[in-house]
Amino acid sequence: MGQSGGCTAAINSSLVGVVEEALRHGEIEGVLGTLHGVEGLLRGELVDLAAESAETLQRIRRTPSAALGSCRHKLQEGDLERIVDILRANNVRYFLYIGGNDSADTSHRVAQTAVAEGYDLRVISVPKTIDNDLPITDHCPGYGSIARFVAQSTRDAGMDTEAMKRYDPVKIIEVMGRNAGWVAASSALGKSNPLDAPHLIYLPESVFSVDRFLEDVARVHREVGYVVVVLSETVRDQSGQVVGNEKPCFVDPFGHGYYDSPAAYLSRVVTRELGLRARYDKPGTIQRMSMALASETDLEEAHLLGRRAVQLAVEGHGDEMVILVRQPGPTYRCLVDSTPLANVANVEKRMPAEFISEGGSFVTRAFIEYATPLIGGPLLPYARLAKEPL
Amino acid sequence: MGQSGGCTAAINSSLVGVVEEALRHGEIEGVLGTLHGVEGLLRGELVDLAAESAETLQRIRRTPSAALGSCRHKLQEGDLERIVDILRANNVRYFLYIGGNDSADTSHRVAQTAVAEGYDLRVISVPKTIDNDLPITDHCPGYGSIARFVAQSTRDAGMDTEAMKRYDPVKIIEVMGRNAGWVAASSALGKSNPLDAPHLIYLPESVFSVDRFLEDVARVHREVGYVVVVLSETVRDQSGQVVGNEKPCFVDPFGHGYYDSPAAYLSRVVTRELGLRARYDKPGTIQRMSMALASETDLEEAHLLGRRAVQLAVEGHGDEMVILVRQPGPTYRCLVDSTPLANVANVEKRMPAEFISEGGSFVTRAFIEYATPLIGGPLLPYARLAKEPL
Repeated sequence: MGQSGGCTAAINSSLVGVVEEALRHGEIEGVLGTLHGVEGLLRGELVDLAAESAETLQRIRRTPSAALGSCRHKLQEGDLERIVDILRANNVRYFLYIGGNDSADTSHRVAQTAVAEGYDLRVISVPKTIDNDLPITDHCPGYGSIARFVAQSTRDAGMDTEAMKRYDPVKIIEVMGRNAGWVAASSALGKSNPLDAPHLIYLPESVFSVDRFLEDVARVHREVGYVVVVLSETVRDQSGQVVGNEKPCFVDPFGHGYYDSPAAYLSRVVTRELGLRARYDKPGTIQRMSMALASETDLEEAHLLGRRAVQLAVEGHGDEMVILVRQPGPTYRCLVDSTPLANVANVEKRMPAEFISEGGSFVTRAFIEYATPLIGGPLLPYARLAKEPL
Repeated sequence: MGQSGGCTAAINSSLVGVVEEALRHGEIEGVLGTLHGVEGLLRGELVDLAAESAETLQRIRRTPSAALGSCRHKLQEGDLERIVDILRANNVRYFLYIGGNDSADTSHRVAQTAVAEGYDLRVISVPKTIDNDLPITDHCPGYGSIARFVAQSTRDAGMDTEAMKRYDPVKIIEVMGRNAGWVAASSALGKSNPLDAPHLIYLPESVFSVDRFLEDVARVHREVGYVVVVLSETVRDQSGQVVGNEKPCFVDPFGHGYYDSPAAYLSRVVTRELGLRARYDKPGTIQRMSMALASETDLEEAHLLGRRAVQLAVEGHGDEMVILVRQPGPTYRCLVDSTPLANVANVEKRMPAEFISEGGSFVTRAFIEYATPLIGGPLLPYARLAKEPL
């Protein structure tokens, strides 16, 4: 097994699920981990996960990051054959890969290559991405935890802005999520009153207009007295560039661009154009790594998917990804199933129209109902003073 | 009573301490709160804190921000006399003001004005600042909580950087603290191993050199394989400007400048000059508002200081600030005392030389011993895999 892509609070729960389940099956003779995903596999950097103590595994389950190291490796010519050769040389029959879109694609190609090479390999992908942008599965492990962090932190920062509204009335919080707005949308889960933060949410699913943004901010400021904006780090203008950037400042091997902070840019624009002092928070990697604000539901589901991936491999499945399937009914419940990797690889699930409010600057009730169970229970119970005038 | 300056996780604990203690004293006929500090006082915006329910107060004690609203009001000509007039008109005899340096100065001037006007007013200031830069008191309520957040988040982001070290090997975390490095220094409290994050800490107490910074980053990268830098948002170069800025982009009424992010600037410089991809996290107001990572010691001390401020006023003290005095001995313990506001107003306590390591890019053992008890117990118990090679 290996881990790939951006780290999360839940990815190690899946790892522990895989190891624990694998150790239950007599037909599994060893449990190997590859360091830094397929990159370490290509270098033959394998470790013995069956040698880890039960105590370490219990603590790893509640340790964020990727305990085996992660990677963002773009497959090169010959890599796939080499991967299959190394797996064959180590008599690896089940290859479990925990990751997001790019990792699902890698897994699918490894599975296809094994078939072509006549090697009996069962590849199961375990979904993991804070971006929540994998198709078919109801949601992705990692998302519930970042959603809890973002919901709680937006509430926190919103109360700060409210208290300081006569001085710093505008706060822009920039969050992750690649080309999908799921993370930014989760900020609304901490809102219990129409006047509370967040007031405006901008998602990469809608074209961003600086002029309309300034109108929105000015309007909320008139109505509420302060403004908390949550912004996806990849909101794009009509030209397709991330707001405030003429081009990416870095492009990774998969072609994903990285940009200067649109929140930094927009806070300067608000201060200059509206005369309202704007500040921004950019929690960066802190948002995806916070075990203190992880979702217990998320950690549980990540563990369960890791276990189920092993069971599927043992049962003879291959070239599949384990998925969560939400059950109908008033109480949240997901079952685990699987889907062919061909359905998943390189498909990006963005926020559907029914989750985005008219005008594009907030989320709908349907989104709140979808996402609330994922954050694993209520946020901290804050209060306001009654403030009875004398 | 009123609240002033930047918000914290602990300032409402002090408020509740004041209200609860005041209600215990028969000679106190009413407990008034002023909205947004002296600014609301000047407008006569007073509320009845004795009318708040015990349940609300219990929840407010664990609610971050400033429940009465805060301010950053620079006193104008005539303000002090008007404040004393309004206090007199409401028969206010004890004026308790929770805040940092600027608020201590305001309190001191209100006390002096009352003397000059012949009005018997007892002014007690309750320290509160994440910056931890008030003199005489061992430390300031609000600091222990932000220190816990920064220590935990640096550990979290550090584990993320370690896992992704082959792709994004440099992480810069920019934290608050005004002209003092106490907040940046607290990042070291989560480091349990010499190779762990943070590797470099830059404080405003030392002149920042971009060239030396690049040398430091390159050296740590060679030695450790990844680099986590924690940076005060006000690190200044030899010209006295915040790194990456030619001038402040905003100056508040007290003359404190606000700047573009030095971390954003330095991450671009690292990527360009060293060819190592650098990212930055700027948790902004989230860092000072996190109740999920608040220090229980901090919340308790904040409450205690609020209570003691009332007792001092009742005992006849005035023109003083309550302070924490650390007791000698192996077990952490602070007693509460007070000091004349004249000793405090406008004095900024920066990190002493014995807390800054030689070369200026880390903290000393003495600092760790000073700050560890303030964060209220150990951080989350993370683990690493043993990773036994096959």
